[in-house]
Amino acid sequence: MTMPRGSGPGVFRVWAPDAERVCVVVAEKTYEMTQTAAGDGWWEVFVGGAGHGEDYAFRIDGGEPRPDPRSLWQPYGVHGPSRTYDHHQFAWHDQEWRGRLLPGSVLYEMHIGTFTTEGTFDAAIERLDHLVALGIDSVELLPLASFDGPHGWGYDGVDLYAVHEPYGGPDGLKRFVDACHVRGIGVVLDVVYNHLGPSGNYLGEFGPYFTETHSTPWGAAVNLDAAGSDEVRHWLIDNAVSWLRDFHLDGLRLDAVHALVDTRAMHILEEMAFDVDVLAAHVGRPLFLIAESDLNDPRLVRAREAGGHGLDAQWADDVHHALHATLTGERQGYYVDFGSLETLAEAMQRVFVHAGTPSTFRGRHHGRPFDPSVTPGWRFVTYLQNHDQVGNRACGDRPTATLSPGLVKIGAALLLCSSYTPMLFMGEEWGAATPWMFFTSFPDPELAEAVRSGRRAEFAAHGWSPDEVADPQDPSTFEASRLDWAEMNKDLHQEYFGWYRQLIELRRANPELTDGRLDRVRCVHDEEDGGDGVGWFVLYRGSIAVACNLGKARRTVPLDGSPTNVLLSSARGFVFRHNEIELEAESVAIVTIAP
Amino acid sequence: MTMPRGSGPGVFRVWAPDAERVCVVVAEKTYEMTQTAAGDGWWEVFVGGAGHGEDYAFRIDGGEPRPDPRSLWQPYGVHGPSRTYDHHQFAWHDQEWRGRLLPGSVLYEMHIGTFTTEGTFDAAIERLDHLVALGIDSVELLPLASFDGPHGWGYDGVDLYAVHEPYGGPDGLKRFVDACHVRGIGVVLDVVYNHLGPSGNYLGEFGPYFTETHSTPWGAAVNLDAAGSDEVRHWLIDNAVSWLRDFHLDGLRLDAVHALVDTRAMHILEEMAFDVDVLAAHVGRPLFLIAESDLNDPRLVRAREAGGHGLDAQWADDVHHALHATLTGERQGYYVDFGSLETLAEAMQRVFVHAGTPSTFRGRHHGRPFDPSVTPGWRFVTYLQNHDQVGNRACGDRPTATLSPGLVKIGAALLLCSSYTPMLFMGEEWGAATPWMFFTSFPDPELAEAVRSGRRAEFAAHGWSPDEVADPQDPSTFEASRLDWAEMNKDLHQEYFGWYRQLIELRRANPELTDGRLDRVRCVHDEEDGGDGVGWFVLYRGSIAVACNLGKARRTVPLDGSPTNVLLSSARGFVFRHNEIELEAESVAIVTIAP
Repeated sequence: MTMPRGSGPGVFRVWAPDAERVCVVVAEKTYEMTQTAAGDGWWEVFVGGAGHGEDYAFRIDGGEPRPDPRSLWQPYGVHGPSRTYDHHQFAWHDQEWRGRLLPGSVLYEMHIGTFTTEGTFDAAIERLDHLVALGIDSVELLPLASFDGPHGWGYDGVDLYAVHEPYGGPDGLKRFVDACHVRGIGVVLDVVYNHLGPSGNYLGEFGPYFTETHSTPWGAAVNLDAAGSDEVRHWLIDNAVSWLRDFHLDGLRLDAVHALVDTRAMHILEEMAFDVDVLAAHVGRPLFLIAESDLNDPRLVRAREAGGHGLDAQWADDVHHALHATLTGERQGYYVDFGSLETLAEAMQRVFVHAGTPSTFRGRHHGRPFDPSVTPGWRFVTYLQNHDQVGNRACGDRPTATLSPGLVKIGAALLLCSSYTPMLFMGEEWGAATPWMFFTSFPDPELAEAVRSGRRAEFAAHGWSPDEVADPQDPSTFEASRLDWAEMNKDLHQEYFGWYRQLIELRRANPELTDGRLDRVRCVHDEEDGGDGVGWFVLYRGSIAVACNLGKARRTVPLDGSPTNVLLSSARGFVFRHNEIELEAESVAIVTIAP
Repeated sequence: MTMPRGSGPGVFRVWAPDAERVCVVVAEKTYEMTQTAAGDGWWEVFVGGAGHGEDYAFRIDGGEPRPDPRSLWQPYGVHGPSRTYDHHQFAWHDQEWRGRLLPGSVLYEMHIGTFTTEGTFDAAIERLDHLVALGIDSVELLPLASFDGPHGWGYDGVDLYAVHEPYGGPDGLKRFVDACHVRGIGVVLDVVYNHLGPSGNYLGEFGPYFTETHSTPWGAAVNLDAAGSDEVRHWLIDNAVSWLRDFHLDGLRLDAVHALVDTRAMHILEEMAFDVDVLAAHVGRPLFLIAESDLNDPRLVRAREAGGHGLDAQWADDVHHALHATLTGERQGYYVDFGSLETLAEAMQRVFVHAGTPSTFRGRHHGRPFDPSVTPGWRFVTYLQNHDQVGNRACGDRPTATLSPGLVKIGAALLLCSSYTPMLFMGEEWGAATPWMFFTSFPDPELAEAVRSGRRAEFAAHGWSPDEVADPQDPSTFEASRLDWAEMNKDLHQEYFGWYRQLIELRRANPELTDGRLDRVRCVHDEEDGGDGVGWFVLYRGSIAVACNLGKARRTVPLDGSPTNVLLSSARGFVFRHNEIELEAESVAIVTIAP
């Protein structure tokens, strides 16, 4: 935690360590800035009367006017001037909010631009009662940092502090968070610190924000460990702190932390986790950091005292892949090592399927195991659907587009009875028929074409012809990705919604389901004809058994005890017997058992 | 530890995972190789009668004949064929050798090519009795992997398993190690795993040995975490194992581990340390790994059980810089933050001067502190001179070229009474007047010119004119860097030798000096006129005090007790009094004190 940096009411501040002259243009008047006495590369000027809502831009060494690297408001988009934003002018109503603990939570991933037809925070607020009825604990918003063009996923943000204006800008986000908190819903934000988008990134004119020492799949790496990186790290960590403190967020999801290459003795993730802990103590409510990581590395969520980074949780793609491959039968790409019930059992019991073992897709060994007797299961966020797993398919189709309702319900039951932190993707709860595709709206025609052909080339490498791959720049791709709330009126969608709602309710009512004791999770299964994911599978969580018949015929599933009570079942009919249950095809029963 | 890979008597094996056809040429006959049944990219062929000393080369997909990536012998240099080498044909005499513990050791860094006029292992053996007289515990050899041209430092090696032929090849190394062991001297080898030299690197034709994902200052990074990296890691770890097992080495010094960029959940350093521990248990003698690291990161030498990499020790440049800057008054380049007695005290007490604190040279914060109550001092190798600190100066001048003998002796006393593992650079023990410069002998004129102009450009950036920088390719640069053993007959050099010999003897005789209890090391000092490194300085190690007068005038140095005995002193005259000692200018006295 540090003193405020950057511009505020009446004062303009910017870091430009190599500049010889820095000016700020405020309301079309130019002011010369001076270096601060600290000699740390910061420039400042006081402009009397420049309060909330004043347009401004910086000029470095007589260059073009550029937005503030710490701009809180970009009303004209990423190429235009910034606008001063005073956090104190917003009237909050969430004084009663005491925060949200991650353990025990169910998350709900939401993209503001497609959650509603309007694609705004205010329209999303109108749908919050739906989430209250569903029973989720926190919404996880896709990135909000301003990016070029009105529509996009948000991973091309360039003004990390400025909420995308078409969504409703900074006040819009505050209204949304306020409305969530008032309804007892927490808000998590996805933040991208490993790269910046391809359009509107003027940071290089200000200072050494990027380094050539490392590279990422999306361009130059953010400078975390070369000369000048102290201030770049402040810029990122202050950003995390600002979302949590100034926008009242409850947690952050850190995008692709494997691309945060940092050779310093204290990794930026550890430093950020430390500072967020300090902030939590200061604001008096729990705050958490969740990493998206492709590393299968226990170090991320291990305590700092034990040599870890001390993050609260991380995404667990292996669990998704095991569930998805088992249910769909898909084995292409990164699903190649998944699909057997044995693999599903590993994923449900030990999170990482690749735990120091060979990964065919990566062409090398991958990951390392962690100790399930010390690591609680809630440190791993799992899902049947998320923006990547749906959106990075050629046509953005959800599993519900091809799976039987029975298999979808089995997947949801395993997800929501797991020891992990389950996350739904918007619309999943009613089996939305709308796809969620990769879409962009870059105004620059050259960039638009590069994105379009890049997408095609990526899928061509996996055998897709160009016309099978949705054009990201075509407005219809974005439009088709919006949720269709009218679907909710249909019987099948009501049935899905009821299933998800009951599962969440069941999870909340039974502490055995949220205890996170990974060392006590147990799976028993029998594959029908070897390794194809069809057969029966039972997940044990204490006295609760989740018995699944994945096959197309009615069958008897053995249990490690006698069923005493059916908590929830997707089967129209089932028969209890001593130490077994008879289940119809593709159905699941959640029962309590007595040993 | 794994089964032997690579070629051996009667069998030729090579890894070429993407090849469609692989042949081996043995004694001018070509043999088709076949892929092994494992389908792991290895090819093999049995050639009856091909025993020890047979020339061979591989041809990938009909390409030019290339040396074996695991060649043990390159009698014709890096571009020529390999020669089979049977480890069993060498007759060892070191059966009594029980290994060398790193704790308590004094190391001696040696470059075979310049240690003697002949520049061979056999010539070096003739000088081993000098090292026995000096009293060091282990020799640390500069890299031996074959590089292009007869002369060089060795950091441009390309055949990692093949001992440089001009030094005497694999049998030469074995004779040297054998002779050392018979005399009670251990042998450590400097190995370079972070890059390969610019000439003779044909590995890219065999497989994915390199990756573009990361970069190093010296070219493409070795592939540690991309597809195919399992085998590349085996190639490196097997190499480490081979030196220790087959050549009877006692430890390895790993060059520039900060350039081993590895995003895997188990870093290659941890994996290597694990495998070396397994080997030690197998061969029944201690083995150790020392890292050269620019990270100031306690993780490297922390136990694996505590989340560290589990290496035995690491180089501590900060201690060198603190000593060097204090003694010489130099403040250029990376010495900028060093030179005060306060900094020297930090270095002697806590190793890292940059421990999460600002580094002016790096333009950012650097490092992190470690816990001195759990980390023993011997885990840090320190020095007044080493190949880099001498050789990377424009003219390769040693501190003795400019320092008074009194200051040199103070430096040596602080080094050898420190809690660290001291290392001398060959010739340092007699104050060698010969420089040690950067030299190469690349046959390729283009590369030669690139190296020459690169060196000039590097120093021009620090204000040196081209004629002040020794030409690395000029044979006289190499020749002038050879030790001049005739110097040893001169009085001053005898005096230095006696001083170093007595210090080593003192260290061995007093357990307080080798206990490594960093938390008990204490320094008291007084700067003469503020921060210039001149004044008095006392290092306390238990009941031993190392009292130094760094000034040009006789002075009284206060002590935390009454001197009871003078163990060693460089002063011709000194006076004991209650709680103080009077020392002549630029002198040191090592005394026992009673509280």
